[in-house]
Amino acid sequence: MTQPSAHEIVQDYHRAWTSGNIDRAMTLVADDIVCRAPGEDLTGKDAYREFIGGFAPTLTGLAEIADFADGERVGLFYYPQTAATATAPAAECFTIRDGKIAENVLIFDRLSFGPPVDA
Amino acid sequence: MTQPSAHEIVQDYHRAWTSGNIDRAMTLVADDIVCRAPGEDLTGKDAYREFIGGFAPTLTGLAEIADFADGERVGLFYYPQTAATATAPAAECFTIRDGKIAENVLIFDRLSFGPPVDA
Repeated sequence: MTQPSAHEIVQDYHRAWTSGNIDRAMTLVADDIVCRAPGEDLTGKDAYREFIGGFAPTLTGLAEIADFADGERVGLFYYPQTAATATAPAAECFTIRDGKIAENVLIFDRLSFGPPVDA
Repeated sequence: MTQPSAHEIVQDYHRAWTSGNIDRAMTLVADDIVCRAPGEDLTGKDAYREFIGGFAPTLTGLAEIADFADGERVGLFYYPQTAATATAPAAECFTIRDGKIAENVLIFDRLSFGPPVDA
């Protein structure tokens, strides 16, 4: 069997969670994932799942901007559309190890996605 | 003469503005640049220069995360370090046309870089 590329793994992950299939998405995430998210660092798949699983139901649409791959690194730029905004972009920089997402640097502007809490 | 690649143009631009050389950086930007920045769209080099020129003096350091290139698209992920934060990432997705930066989707979390104004 051919191993999927880092790019394919991320595309599979991205399609899964943005279509609401969190279970499928999490099969592509390492147990010890480290994710830098806006305002917080998430460590471990449980924390990561809670974060993504909390955001996914707010998606009303998706518009891709660009995607990049370079060895084990994959970069995505897209518009995660919600009731708050259709034009605020997000970016993710993934690092793949042993066929799973081991690191993610996830960037979006919290202010664009809703009123700040405890700002 | 060999034309610089899209990747080289962006690297040149990135080095210039992050070292405070806004004049040099702007030689690599199209007059009619369109930039999606957090909370605002910037149109034209004057508006873009004002935005970047306003942020550049607040930089206290820089840590690169990753960079990607695919044809005329270039993606950068890095930490623009300021007095407010050294660990809040930024991402930029550039489109190069005719040797200049024609489009930029610039993403960072405003809340991480300082207290919100009029939030």
